[in-house]
Amino acid sequence: MMYSRVALLLALCFSFLATAQQKDYTQYVNPFIGTSNFGATHPGAIAPRGMASVSPFNVAGSQNALEKDSRWLSNPYVNENTFLTGFSHLNMSGVGCPDLGVILSMPTTGELKTEHLQYGTTYKNEEAKPGYYSVELDKYDVKTELTASTRVGVSRYSFPAGKANLLLNLGLGLTNEHGAMLKFNSPTEIEGYRMVGAFCYNNAESAYPVYFVARISEAPENFGIWDKPASYEGVEAQWMGYNGKTRLKEQFMREVVGDSIGAYVQYDFEKPTQVVMKIGVSYVSIANARENLDKEVGDATFDEVYQQTKNAWNDKLSVVEVEGDDADDKTIFYTGLYHTQIAPSILNDSNGEYPAMKTRATKKTDGTRYTVFSLWDTYRNYHQLMSLLYPQEQLDMVNSMLEIYDQNDWLPKWELNATETFTMVGDPAAVVLADTYQRGITGFDVEKAYAAMLKSADARENNPLRPGIAEYIDKGYVSVDSDVAGPVSTTQEYNIADFSIAQLAEALGKKEDAKRFTKRALSYKKLFNKTSGFLQPKMSDDTWYEPFDPLAGANFTENPGFIEGNAWQYLFMQPHDIKGMIKLMGGAKNFEAKLDALFAEDQFDMANEPDIAYPFLYNYLPGKSYKTREKVADLIDTYFTNNPAGLPGNEDTGTMSAWLIYAMMGFYPMTPGEATYTLSAPQFNKVTIHLNSDFYANDTLVIQNVSENPTKVSAGFSIGGKSIKKQAITHKEWVNAGEVIFE
Amino acid sequence: MMYSRVALLLALCFSFLATAQQKDYTQYVNPFIGTSNFGATHPGAIAPRGMASVSPFNVAGSQNALEKDSRWLSNPYVNENTFLTGFSHLNMSGVGCPDLGVILSMPTTGELKTEHLQYGTTYKNEEAKPGYYSVELDKYDVKTELTASTRVGVSRYSFPAGKANLLLNLGLGLTNEHGAMLKFNSPTEIEGYRMVGAFCYNNAESAYPVYFVARISEAPENFGIWDKPASYEGVEAQWMGYNGKTRLKEQFMREVVGDSIGAYVQYDFEKPTQVVMKIGVSYVSIANARENLDKEVGDATFDEVYQQTKNAWNDKLSVVEVEGDDADDKTIFYTGLYHTQIAPSILNDSNGEYPAMKTRATKKTDGTRYTVFSLWDTYRNYHQLMSLLYPQEQLDMVNSMLEIYDQNDWLPKWELNATETFTMVGDPAAVVLADTYQRGITGFDVEKAYAAMLKSADARENNPLRPGIAEYIDKGYVSVDSDVAGPVSTTQEYNIADFSIAQLAEALGKKEDAKRFTKRALSYKKLFNKTSGFLQPKMSDDTWYEPFDPLAGANFTENPGFIEGNAWQYLFMQPHDIKGMIKLMGGAKNFEAKLDALFAEDQFDMANEPDIAYPFLYNYLPGKSYKTREKVADLIDTYFTNNPAGLPGNEDTGTMSAWLIYAMMGFYPMTPGEATYTLSAPQFNKVTIHLNSDFYANDTLVIQNVSENPTKVSAGFSIGGKSIKKQAITHKEWVNAGEVIFE
Repeated sequence: MMYSRVALLLALCFSFLATAQQKDYTQYVNPFIGTSNFGATHPGAIAPRGMASVSPFNVAGSQNALEKDSRWLSNPYVNENTFLTGFSHLNMSGVGCPDLGVILSMPTTGELKTEHLQYGTTYKNEEAKPGYYSVELDKYDVKTELTASTRVGVSRYSFPAGKANLLLNLGLGLTNEHGAMLKFNSPTEIEGYRMVGAFCYNNAESAYPVYFVARISEAPENFGIWDKPASYEGVEAQWMGYNGKTRLKEQFMREVVGDSIGAYVQYDFEKPTQVVMKIGVSYVSIANARENLDKEVGDATFDEVYQQTKNAWNDKLSVVEVEGDDADDKTIFYTGLYHTQIAPSILNDSNGEYPAMKTRATKKTDGTRYTVFSLWDTYRNYHQLMSLLYPQEQLDMVNSMLEIYDQNDWLPKWELNATETFTMVGDPAAVVLADTYQRGITGFDVEKAYAAMLKSADARENNPLRPGIAEYIDKGYVSVDSDVAGPVSTTQEYNIADFSIAQLAEALGKKEDAKRFTKRALSYKKLFNKTSGFLQPKMSDDTWYEPFDPLAGANFTENPGFIEGNAWQYLFMQPHDIKGMIKLMGGAKNFEAKLDALFAEDQFDMANEPDIAYPFLYNYLPGKSYKTREKVADLIDTYFTNNPAGLPGNEDTGTMSAWLIYAMMGFYPMTPGEATYTLSAPQFNKVTIHLNSDFYANDTLVIQNVSENPTKVSAGFSIGGKSIKKQAITHKEWVNAGEVIFE
Repeated sequence: MMYSRVALLLALCFSFLATAQQKDYTQYVNPFIGTSNFGATHPGAIAPRGMASVSPFNVAGSQNALEKDSRWLSNPYVNENTFLTGFSHLNMSGVGCPDLGVILSMPTTGELKTEHLQYGTTYKNEEAKPGYYSVELDKYDVKTELTASTRVGVSRYSFPAGKANLLLNLGLGLTNEHGAMLKFNSPTEIEGYRMVGAFCYNNAESAYPVYFVARISEAPENFGIWDKPASYEGVEAQWMGYNGKTRLKEQFMREVVGDSIGAYVQYDFEKPTQVVMKIGVSYVSIANARENLDKEVGDATFDEVYQQTKNAWNDKLSVVEVEGDDADDKTIFYTGLYHTQIAPSILNDSNGEYPAMKTRATKKTDGTRYTVFSLWDTYRNYHQLMSLLYPQEQLDMVNSMLEIYDQNDWLPKWELNATETFTMVGDPAAVVLADTYQRGITGFDVEKAYAAMLKSADARENNPLRPGIAEYIDKGYVSVDSDVAGPVSTTQEYNIADFSIAQLAEALGKKEDAKRFTKRALSYKKLFNKTSGFLQPKMSDDTWYEPFDPLAGANFTENPGFIEGNAWQYLFMQPHDIKGMIKLMGGAKNFEAKLDALFAEDQFDMANEPDIAYPFLYNYLPGKSYKTREKVADLIDTYFTNNPAGLPGNEDTGTMSAWLIYAMMGFYPMTPGEATYTLSAPQFNKVTIHLNSDFYANDTLVIQNVSENPTKVSAGFSIGGKSIKKQAITHKEWVNAGEVIFE
């Protein structure tokens, strides 16, 4: 304990020295952005990429506008809700499916109540900043403050005098999984675990435990475990006076398991008293949760932990400095950057251990094993941004993906806490691997990566990553009658992945493969119906699926061709063959008209990934790049605001924010798998990117917008005083540019 | 491992030396006796007073005559049942309420099935002897053999060639509690625990885990955990294709908790193969279960474990040698002795640790902490028999009762695995403590024992042991309107307990208390209605409760005055005031007539405890002792046979067998709390009791019956050649007698 205390103080000292002169960027972050309008972020306390986070939990109870058990709801907190039932210590932020949202603490006063609908309360005076959240609970007059280190959630409860309770509910949760264990080691230390999983209602057989050790600062007068068992339904129920009733197991010192259990400690305070609860978590074991707690927090105070985490946030946020007059713009920008540092999150414990895929046997990493790979979202722009701003993290992510491949025999599709959730379509890992390598981040086993990519690209049978692959290889598309979800979308995604494989093959000197996959990447054309002007679902006999409605599939309704979108939204999703599709659609003029129509007819969906790059397509039409700059500026203004509803929709683990950050900095990675950018216009007068010198020759990239109205810059810009005409630039040119001036 | 192996072999060697010349008494034990007719014993493998036992489990499934979920059933095995679903590793034997019957192993062949109704099977060729049971499973052609050490169950499965599975089901169980944890440490080691408790459908809040570590001799080809979760019932169930379905978690290496979970290992044998599974158990922790497994069994073979346990049984059974011509008599006798060595069983682990009452915090004993104290049954004769035959065990039991008092603030009533189940009525611990001390077994803190006895006798408020105590103290009886169950029975039991307190008070020189409790012990008279000739329930205003039916309450039907019996069965239950009640009932002649009527009118119930001593009451009527001898011989012949139905009913943790052993040896401890015996007639030509020289001066007591027809001896007997006329004798005289001859 002493050791960790000293270590922490030293860390704080160094951190102080390092940041003494540093600006406080956390002041520009508003964690409430994205907590409404299905942004699905939470405003709770979290350290950068933290395994633990502590979020207010206000989605249980029909008093609320949005309630977890009455609809598909993927977040522990909704800003417009009013009924709070605790503070969950493991949360995802900005995802589209419910999971985690477990290990809920809750302070109450007076008599002990263990049913959340009874002890829940309204609240006021919420405050949130990176690593900190506080709220006042109306019913109990208890101020609750939350902070967190990477693997430890810390909460501070300011109780009034009198009887008080602190609950730890392992029954309630956002996840649909149940089952937990609780054990008191002493009146002030509780250990246990909670089963979670079945993210997106998939792969329930992989449900897994998350472990914790909780320590409470004040010795209670009494403690115990409650257990509400399922009702027994046999003949014998008549003899069971206790059937289905909640049991209080006072001062019980052994394991209790159950679907609806919780721990409580009870106080009778003579005067107002603060109680601090520290909960270390782990996906490996209770022992590791305890080690995480001891190493990261030990006996540090709440304020010390918060300061440490605040410093960590400043380290992250200061990678980009933006200058401009609009305070909200800064808030929107840094909140976006903040949101890119939530997921992927850290899976390994402080000792490097983490659970293997499938078996969950203990593995060890020397670096960082990341998790929460929502790759269908993030392959499009997020990892490109990480390569630029946080290349070491991106490298660790790629290595994590290869560890997943080692353990699971397949690259990840949508990996969560060492489970493959098989969510969404396509083969996005291939794109991320190729893209990262192309950007010069090569410190991984690229031959292994390439073999892994080939495996999913070529395995005709039992291929969990690429269902329909045999038909795709044979015919160039996946048919409606293949029973593969969204066969047009899937074909397009496979094209994009194949393009990436071709790029990496080229880079690795594998000419044959490069040729083969370059060809495969263009097969989307077989689904283009020149009559309708759309990519359309096709039957396996090469006839068009009827009827065809280009609007079908909007708003997440099912449709025979597309996943989470309609024919409009998927029409231009060939970022790797922009010239080809312009030609396919009848040339630049026709293409522009169709693109205009997409926006005019309100078919563009800023809230979902397939079409988010489309505003940048005007750059590829001669003389039309002003439309990109206008459209991008307009979309930022419309969808990204300093409000809880200030995201267009689901944050999608940093993808929406990555779009925003790029858009505000004035460039965008148009073609995943290719290390290039297309340019728009910086929304700030000046953007300074501090590059990581382990990966890049320059230590800064300065982007200046010297036009009077930053959103109305011309197409012109210069690098190092040299005027550049083209609208595209390579990653290498960019990071070596030093200074870029938009005029 | 090596250490324990050596230790075991040494133990086997010494045991061999000690028993080389010894007769095999286990041949006279038939573990099937009591497995029908609600005897509630099981035929499984168990070491003397073993914590672990392995029993065939055939009470799940409507194919059976008696099925656990369709009625009150208190045993894992019923002889007339036909459908077996596994082998349970923790069992009670001979109790009247369901609990335990958990941690079920099951061998199957072919495809893996995890539902017990699907994988259950009929069976044949059962064999049982002390420490060993075997059976052949029809459906799978797998012979299963069971043995056990004190805390380890060992099973051996002889599989045919081909696909095979070994299951460990933690969902199924005799207990009505649910909830378990399972974790594979390797393909051949599984750890976990199972929640049990709520014995007799009482005190569910004390439900507790029992821990285990299982090791399997052969490395499997595959392994996993199945988990059948409860069905989700919310709106979201529509998205859960897996809702309520069993999940197979293949090669999963983390904890899984749930109400219906199990582990499986899978084989594909080239030739017939034996697999041995060893399961160590503990009520303290998984670590202790592992230590128990390592210390007691380690890498010993199945046969070595069985031999060790067989030797242990011979050590126990050889304490009494009986000689006679009737083979069945010997079997009945030694099976009775065997049954007295099942419960109380050992609660502490091999390292001495055991869970405290209530909190289950870890405690440690230097001796043995016994559990399963069914004191309402056993105070009547069982502990008296233990004092005579196994005084060290009786002393440890008394010390265990005092540890329970230390931890729970009250002496036990019906203690089970460190929970107080609050079953039955009265204050039986007081009787056991006083009786043991009176028999010269004094190596316990008698002042503490006395204080504990006084506490329950005198605490007028919040007295969980003696409900209705205030009214009892004030009026001498508990009234019907007090809402105390069985107020007449309760009054009688309190009288018996008070008599015992008086005896101990006298022995300790506490004259005032002796006087006070002697007086209290006779208050039953207030409930005697001279008009009806019965003890009758009374209202608190001293009027008789109406209507009164002396037959009400037979066959466990409820009645306002009595517990598990009617006015007939409770009439003579004043073993401490035989003279007084003879007088109360109008003298010896009237008393005899009433006693005759009890038997003639078929009101005597050999299957339950209140009246089992009544046959010996004729000894107290001048010239009528022949009726005791006749009646006792008749009852033995009628109710105790070498058959599964060969117990009169519930074995009641040794009480029925203690009755039988005393009756067959020719004497009986008529008055609990008083160190005396009344005599009848030995059923054998010769009985040799080997007395424990740590407690008794003589090392043997030889009882000879020299009459031609042993069941028809006269009243005469002699000690050391000296003819004795009286029908009662003190314990001290008896153990010092050396040789007793019945003529």
